[in-house]
Amino acid sequence: MTIASVVDRWPDSARIFARYTLGCASCAISKSETILAGATGHGGGRVNMDELMRDLNTLADTGKLPDNLPAANATAGPGGMKMRGIGVLDGDITGPSIPRMFGVREKPMSADGKTLVPPKSRGGIPIMSMNLILPSEEEAVIWRGPMVSGAIRQFFSDVQWGELDYLIVDLPPGTSDAPLTVMQALPVDGVVLVTTPQALATMVVTKAVKLVKQLGGDIIGVVENMAYVTLPDGGRLEVFGPSQGLKLVIASNAPLMGKLPIDPAIARDADNGDIENYTSPEADELVENFMLVAPLKEPVRA
Amino acid sequence: MTIASVVDRWPDSARIFARYTLGCASCAISKSETILAGATGHGGGRVNMDELMRDLNTLADTGKLPDNLPAANATAGPGGMKMRGIGVLDGDITGPSIPRMFGVREKPMSADGKTLVPPKSRGGIPIMSMNLILPSEEEAVIWRGPMVSGAIRQFFSDVQWGELDYLIVDLPPGTSDAPLTVMQALPVDGVVLVTTPQALATMVVTKAVKLVKQLGGDIIGVVENMAYVTLPDGGRLEVFGPSQGLKLVIASNAPLMGKLPIDPAIARDADNGDIENYTSPEADELVENFMLVAPLKEPVRA
Repeated sequence: MTIASVVDRWPDSARIFARYTLGCASCAISKSETILAGATGHGGGRVNMDELMRDLNTLADTGKLPDNLPAANATAGPGGMKMRGIGVLDGDITGPSIPRMFGVREKPMSADGKTLVPPKSRGGIPIMSMNLILPSEEEAVIWRGPMVSGAIRQFFSDVQWGELDYLIVDLPPGTSDAPLTVMQALPVDGVVLVTTPQALATMVVTKAVKLVKQLGGDIIGVVENMAYVTLPDGGRLEVFGPSQGLKLVIASNAPLMGKLPIDPAIARDADNGDIENYTSPEADELVENFMLVAPLKEPVRA
Repeated sequence: MTIASVVDRWPDSARIFARYTLGCASCAISKSETILAGATGHGGGRVNMDELMRDLNTLADTGKLPDNLPAANATAGPGGMKMRGIGVLDGDITGPSIPRMFGVREKPMSADGKTLVPPKSRGGIPIMSMNLILPSEEEAVIWRGPMVSGAIRQFFSDVQWGELDYLIVDLPPGTSDAPLTVMQALPVDGVVLVTTPQALATMVVTKAVKLVKQLGGDIIGVVENMAYVTLPDGGRLEVFGPSQGLKLVIASNAPLMGKLPIDPAIARDADNGDIENYTSPEADELVENFMLVAPLKEPVRA
């Protein structure tokens, strides 16, 4: 998301950018520059990104926002996301893990024989995944691309998602059928890219940047996962090497929305179907930044 | 690999199994039992797997082996693997990372206009990957399944692999086109499954077990990656939770060939194209165990 588009959406943010020496909010380059890129390039290295983002978030909280934009304040951990009307479509047809993470085992119901009503997580998030259709979660789906594409399309069009602010589609890595189908057949408002700090991973994710751009999509943010391990003494160990986030920010022209550590609690909560109750400062910040950059248009209706 | 098949291949190993209270080497169950499963189930918990595997490796070194079986002794770190005639086919067409890890940038040559001569790593390992054909390694390959399958088939049949002991095919996760094509169109002798300790990951890999079994393949071993982080003080932090290896060993009926830690040196060497020079006790053990269980039939010829 560019500085210009932030200002366009929240005119008052121009004052905040200016306060952080980012007069570029009114300059032509702001149309192609992300908040981070602007702060890095024109702030002379003196901009405190955390403070800038916090001030922008505070602005979002004052009510000077379009009605349909969610407040981007802090309470929205993954648990809080349900308040905004979130649904999750598991686009990884042959390696689905979403239901397990949310502790959902119930099968989708069909009242009319044509559409499916997705089961909901304990927190009320409707979820659709191949694993909810299989006789058991360990059953294999040995499908070639066209079947995979068909399933994704059906999970969108034949599922009664209800009224949602955000329908999140989780995708496997790569640039083959699943992301291609989502970009071509679903009304995607924005793409969030997730990577790890390895140069190798960054190289592969750069391919995804090209896929989105070639298909006319919009990358709204980049997330660095497994960025470091927090040691028992509180120190940080960058097990995959130093951050490559800025490289992707430049390649994608989208902000770095967050860096998530390798946190044993994430693994534990995901394995236990309890991911909705996971909370951490890093996750909260990520959700805040997502709310800040994610476009909210018409509510998603099935 | 079952105990019976080890004994079948190296008759002298029966004495070694017996020494470790595994008289089951001559029992019917040994036909369906892996070394680890046997040691766990019938050794009464008293079998030292490390010693048993070392003794089996020593046996392999005494020359009482079929001629075409490689010595399974210790010198074979990834660097040593080149001595045995290894080639690597990067089966991840849309997210290829093998050339980068091996520092290979040269394009494949075609002398006859029909077949390709794969470039070799500094250590002499021939490598074929989609990334070697692209104008740049960050270019995207936006291909649906049939194209992906075609590329994998061509990488096998139209590439002059020369005489190899092992052609290793690296596959992306999932049970769609890439693994399906490899299982159906390539003469696969055995499959090695790689997972992380999360129950989630184990669940997804169990699907791959079913794929291999449904297609009549042979799973020769399981590897647990990212098993733990070695802390600066030498301690181990199981960042993804405790090992799930035994679960997969049972599901796949194949031995746990090794557990690899999250090692910053792996990330660094892979990013620097220097993975051949990476060495660690865990990697050496993994290669030893691979040599022990991997079937060696006719040399692969292009």
